[in-house]
Amino acid sequence: MRLPPIIAIRMRILVFFALVLITTHATAADEATRPAPTMAQVLADSSPSDWRRPEPENTLYLQLPAGRVVIELAPGFAPEHVANIRALAHAHYWDGLALLRVQDNYVTQWGDPAAEDAAQRKSLAPAKTRLPAEFERDSTGLDFHAIDSRDAYASEVGFADGFPVARDPVRGKAWLTHCYGLVGAGRDNAADSSNGAELYVVIGHAPRHLDRNITSVGRVLSGMTLLSALPRGPEPMGFYTDAAQRIPIQSVRLAADVPPAEREPIEVFRTDTPAFQRLVQSRRERHEPWFVDPVGRIELCNVPIPVRRIPAAD
Amino acid sequence: MRLPPIIAIRMRILVFFALVLITTHATAADEATRPAPTMAQVLADSSPSDWRRPEPENTLYLQLPAGRVVIELAPGFAPEHVANIRALAHAHYWDGLALLRVQDNYVTQWGDPAAEDAAQRKSLAPAKTRLPAEFERDSTGLDFHAIDSRDAYASEVGFADGFPVARDPVRGKAWLTHCYGLVGAGRDNAADSSNGAELYVVIGHAPRHLDRNITSVGRVLSGMTLLSALPRGPEPMGFYTDAAQRIPIQSVRLAADVPPAEREPIEVFRTDTPAFQRLVQSRRERHEPWFVDPVGRIELCNVPIPVRRIPAAD
Repeated sequence: MRLPPIIAIRMRILVFFALVLITTHATAADEATRPAPTMAQVLADSSPSDWRRPEPENTLYLQLPAGRVVIELAPGFAPEHVANIRALAHAHYWDGLALLRVQDNYVTQWGDPAAEDAAQRKSLAPAKTRLPAEFERDSTGLDFHAIDSRDAYASEVGFADGFPVARDPVRGKAWLTHCYGLVGAGRDNAADSSNGAELYVVIGHAPRHLDRNITSVGRVLSGMTLLSALPRGPEPMGFYTDAAQRIPIQSVRLAADVPPAEREPIEVFRTDTPAFQRLVQSRRERHEPWFVDPVGRIELCNVPIPVRRIPAAD
Repeated sequence: MRLPPIIAIRMRILVFFALVLITTHATAADEATRPAPTMAQVLADSSPSDWRRPEPENTLYLQLPAGRVVIELAPGFAPEHVANIRALAHAHYWDGLALLRVQDNYVTQWGDPAAEDAAQRKSLAPAKTRLPAEFERDSTGLDFHAIDSRDAYASEVGFADGFPVARDPVRGKAWLTHCYGLVGAGRDNAADSSNGAELYVVIGHAPRHLDRNITSVGRVLSGMTLLSALPRGPEPMGFYTDAAQRIPIQSVRLAADVPPAEREPIEVFRTDTPAFQRLVQSRRERHEPWFVDPVGRIELCNVPIPVRRIPAAD
């Protein structure tokens, strides 16, 4: 578009003032509603304060022969289970146990192959053998950041403590959602029959009907492919038929129990920042050249929570 | 609750008449809203007419070293792509090509490793090299059966022709949804750059932002684990780095081109029946003993479409 020189110059001045005005009045809310950049741009523009280092007390390392899975625990949602998981890790409970079950489009599960056999199973001591159900928590006091999304299972969805979360404002409750990578505590039919010794991770489409039916304890931060790309078990629920098929667990350790030099040097993108709101918006309105239709909508479990390695010089 | 005998008897009579009344006036809609049985009960109660045998002209066999994947094509949604895929299968185009890409929580993709190299790539002849975008179709004439579900990406969702489908009643359009197992045709940035030679299948949480951005051609009926449990490729988009990592394709055949004795003896649960409405309801209201909360909600991609082997005597 060509314009006479003087008008063009005047427009440049106008644009300059307009930009100053926008910058002066910019707030976190404005930032979130600006035309969305791509996720790559959001991450490139992020500052160090947009990232956080998971607490070593809340970080679990599941060491498999093929590598390390890093899990972040959620004491804000399942304090009793997290305390028991810490106690089990301290006691090296899982060392030598195994991945027992891989069910396609559902879960990978690990624990004691002899858990059903009172005579053979490994002792949980000093951890507890039974815990209360922690299916949901009071939403009072939770730093919940809603996203604009029509959700099939909950009236409100968003993020809290770095986790995807649903909230019911009528009942005043909130809970972790079964998105890809969520870690939960297996249980029998009794609501209070879990103890955190048998854990599962979601490896398929979010089975959100499990929300509020089981205790969720955290989510995988890195190493998901060590759990998702495994051979599916031949039994109907994906259990391996014989011991040779199971994947042995070398160790499970709390990061706090591991020397700092051996901890995983990762950072997680914060979910309580204007930068994260921009990231959600970048996934709602897709501006990558490939997209013909920018979509304009987003589902909770399709919002990624980026993780990056801390540079060695850091 | 104890009641005097006479009142109790009168109530029994009342209940008897009430039941006769309900039975007399029962319709398909009533059936769908009755207290839900479990899915196992729905399937056990199903009649032969609740099942269908996919058309051999719409059934594709992807033969891998580890077994056979069965794909049902959707000519009602992508007629040009399905015609091209049939032509490519007739010409044995895919035989000797490979699975090229496995990206965690996203897709497995197959085709010609040399597709980008005009000098090296395999000829598509007699199939076409370029097809129109078939991202959606007119919903007029589509036998669409909506389910009651709040969907993040579409105003209406349900099933048509046996596939999970979304519909926009305002624009009068419908499209296949990217649920687990959906098969689509890879493309470059141009909307009309796909030809059906490079196909992908969803192996993770439904990437519904791909809906209406790419041509969906069908979905996997059986053999999903042959595509979902593979090692993830090391490159950012999951491409295998060298040829040795790729999984070779032994053959791709249309079932119609295969002798009847060699066809896969499977039946698929129909999605246009009262029995299917009961199945959806059984997944919305969970009455299995394990569930503490019956949920009461369902998302489109969490509705299973059962497949069974036809008994040998049939």
